[in-house]
Amino acid sequence: MEIIRPRTLSGFMELLPEKQLKMERMMAVLRQVYGLYGFAPLDTPVIEDAQILLAKGGGDTEKQIYRFQKGDSDLALRFDLTVPLAKYVALHEQELAFPFRRYQIGKVYRGERAQRGRFREFYQADIDIIGDGTLDVLNEAEIPAIIYQVFRRFGLTRFQIRVNNRKLLSGFYAMLGLAERSGEIMRTVDKLDKIGPEKVAGLLQDDLGLTAEQAREILRFTSLSGSRDQVLPALGAYQGKEPLFDRGLEELNTVTKNLAAFGVPEENFAVDLSIARGLDYYTGTVYETALLDHPEIGSVCSGGRYDDLAGFYTARKLPGVGISIGLTRLFYVLDEQGLLNDALPSAPADVLVLPMTADPGPAIALGEAFRTQGLRVQLYAEQKKFKQKMRYADSLHVPFAVLLGEDELAQDKCSVKNMATGEQLLLTPEAAACHIQKALAALNGPIILEK
Amino acid sequence: MEIIRPRTLSGFMELLPEKQLKMERMMAVLRQVYGLYGFAPLDTPVIEDAQILLAKGGGDTEKQIYRFQKGDSDLALRFDLTVPLAKYVALHEQELAFPFRRYQIGKVYRGERAQRGRFREFYQADIDIIGDGTLDVLNEAEIPAIIYQVFRRFGLTRFQIRVNNRKLLSGFYAMLGLAERSGEIMRTVDKLDKIGPEKVAGLLQDDLGLTAEQAREILRFTSLSGSRDQVLPALGAYQGKEPLFDRGLEELNTVTKNLAAFGVPEENFAVDLSIARGLDYYTGTVYETALLDHPEIGSVCSGGRYDDLAGFYTARKLPGVGISIGLTRLFYVLDEQGLLNDALPSAPADVLVLPMTADPGPAIALGEAFRTQGLRVQLYAEQKKFKQKMRYADSLHVPFAVLLGEDELAQDKCSVKNMATGEQLLLTPEAAACHIQKALAALNGPIILEK
Repeated sequence: MEIIRPRTLSGFMELLPEKQLKMERMMAVLRQVYGLYGFAPLDTPVIEDAQILLAKGGGDTEKQIYRFQKGDSDLALRFDLTVPLAKYVALHEQELAFPFRRYQIGKVYRGERAQRGRFREFYQADIDIIGDGTLDVLNEAEIPAIIYQVFRRFGLTRFQIRVNNRKLLSGFYAMLGLAERSGEIMRTVDKLDKIGPEKVAGLLQDDLGLTAEQAREILRFTSLSGSRDQVLPALGAYQGKEPLFDRGLEELNTVTKNLAAFGVPEENFAVDLSIARGLDYYTGTVYETALLDHPEIGSVCSGGRYDDLAGFYTARKLPGVGISIGLTRLFYVLDEQGLLNDALPSAPADVLVLPMTADPGPAIALGEAFRTQGLRVQLYAEQKKFKQKMRYADSLHVPFAVLLGEDELAQDKCSVKNMATGEQLLLTPEAAACHIQKALAALNGPIILEK
Repeated sequence: MEIIRPRTLSGFMELLPEKQLKMERMMAVLRQVYGLYGFAPLDTPVIEDAQILLAKGGGDTEKQIYRFQKGDSDLALRFDLTVPLAKYVALHEQELAFPFRRYQIGKVYRGERAQRGRFREFYQADIDIIGDGTLDVLNEAEIPAIIYQVFRRFGLTRFQIRVNNRKLLSGFYAMLGLAERSGEIMRTVDKLDKIGPEKVAGLLQDDLGLTAEQAREILRFTSLSGSRDQVLPALGAYQGKEPLFDRGLEELNTVTKNLAAFGVPEENFAVDLSIARGLDYYTGTVYETALLDHPEIGSVCSGGRYDDLAGFYTARKLPGVGISIGLTRLFYVLDEQGLLNDALPSAPADVLVLPMTADPGPAIALGEAFRTQGLRVQLYAEQKKFKQKMRYADSLHVPFAVLLGEDELAQDKCSVKNMATGEQLLLTPEAAACHIQKALAALNGPIILEK
């Protein structure tokens, strides 16, 4: 038979079992936290009608999209989870209860230029709250609590959720007589992180034609950053001049005022007026999340409030607020930097049961008994030498091997070997399960390390 | 703005929230059981190089596949999880420990003719155990235990795991002087369920040119079915004539002998010599699973032992055993027949917290306190009339609404309303969480009903 050399396409993440387990742990946290906040899981097709998916059209999206014909159908792979959500909500608007809260963790596709750390297939983990006509600003206040719980349960403490408000920004630009230029300015200011204030000032003047004074004003304003108590009083100076600004300030006030009730500690939160999020469709609170010791990673969870989710598909006004985690990229970067905790168990099983008698029956039954105690058990069924069996246990990094030979059977016991320490104990099956569970509980720890 | 009518492609399942939750429950059981048996989760790309995916090529697969160009690349969407597994194992053979046990629950794509109940995008939930050169038959004995646990945890008792052995069949055909025709005969006999024994006898004679006596012998043999104690003695009569048959009998003996130790009750298991599984690549034990009260659904979990997983990608011999559940189709059929348990909670939240005071702070904090107790809580943040709030709680089918007004606050209590019974209690937050958790535990029940 002719052999074809196997390969995985570049830009497509495919993990070895130990790493996949780490990824699964992160996904389990996301599912759990999103569930605790009352979000319904959603699963939409990977393939959609291209006309519908590209209703908004234009720009990079269209170039990067995977689009193809099948029979008479013009098909495309989803490039985010927001457009499919818009389609879903518009399609089912009669059947959904609003506010509609959904989470979706799914793969999306963008045919970007192949590049280290750039993925063509990647997971997004999104939540959105969609209102019917209106959506209270309190929903915007809840988002930081969800972000906080996610990263806290990842094991982190050194992270900061940063918020701003687009009305505040637009209102401020209106005060400067730049209401019409608000979008352009925000996209430029959004580059602050990457190119610094001087270059942004240059672009504001050279590309957008602002005066040096206007650029200075903007940079002074967007440099405001800190706790609620630091930033909100400073914003008072601008109050009463522009209704849009005042509304933004009121929203920011509501969002920040309730943080303590939502359980978000002060040190994990900041108001940061430099955050704009490039996308035009945000209209209220916007969010970014930084790992404090790793600013080079950029925002690990972003999103915001928007007023019109599905205008392309329905006349109904559907405002919403949502955030997205680029899970594949986040995982890749954490792994690159060695921040995924290697001390957590990485084997697919907690216990490898090794039958050492001619009749495997007792070992099989022992494995089943362990499983009823919630232990993940692999039965090693191969006829190999003892040394090879132990080498397998080692290469799997399984924390415990349990040996069942004639000696053990005669005593209704089993030998429990801790593969890390080498310690071997002769225990009853019940005591063995208990001993293993205790040891596993002690191996608990953060999923992500902070260094 | 021009509005494009939203739609989802036909042949693509997209569920409303309440049904999606049922699907998630089934997936959670699969992940849990597969994990308990020491299978590692695997996630491979949906898109693969078309040349590699189609290495085996030919037949319906090639016609149904989603294949397209992107730049210079000839790409295709995976049509099952077995070929990607073969690629993965061949690609990473130096990095994996064998036996390699993996599970994968993922979407696959087949552009079949659109038809009610036929899906173009559907989930498969697979497990496979891959050996390096050899793989002990005890692994084949473990598979029924895994199938049993899955369906038992779905809530079922009235199901039967049916096994056969391809060596037994091939050996038997060899006895009849039909060794060369073994594959054709098995594919014909595989139709027994659908067209009955007379038509199969007809096909064996008319299409394959067998004698009436040979057809009769085959049908007599394949009609053997029942418990280990019923079938194995009957097979003794054929023993000692054909080495392949004898090896098959020995394997079947090993597989059935250990069932009790694996915890599979006799009533959930049968040896059924009519089972062949159409695919040529099975070489040992084969499995089907029937819902006893719903034979029309056909096998809900099938698979078998094969000797050569990845011959297209590597010279290394990689025998294995695996099973697959066509999850999307199973879910669809169960739903059609009303067998998905509607009595289980179907809301995305266990509790809807309704702030009834100007300051939402106490309600927010109460929600957070409930979440630390593991309750899924939605905060209702909209400024609506009380009646509208309750209507929302109703339409969400949330089991409990918790009201927090000035009266409750003054007593450090909250009002807990059971939405099903209408009962309303004034409780402390701790007592409320406890009360709700107890009520939820009582709502526990099977995921799938048997009628």
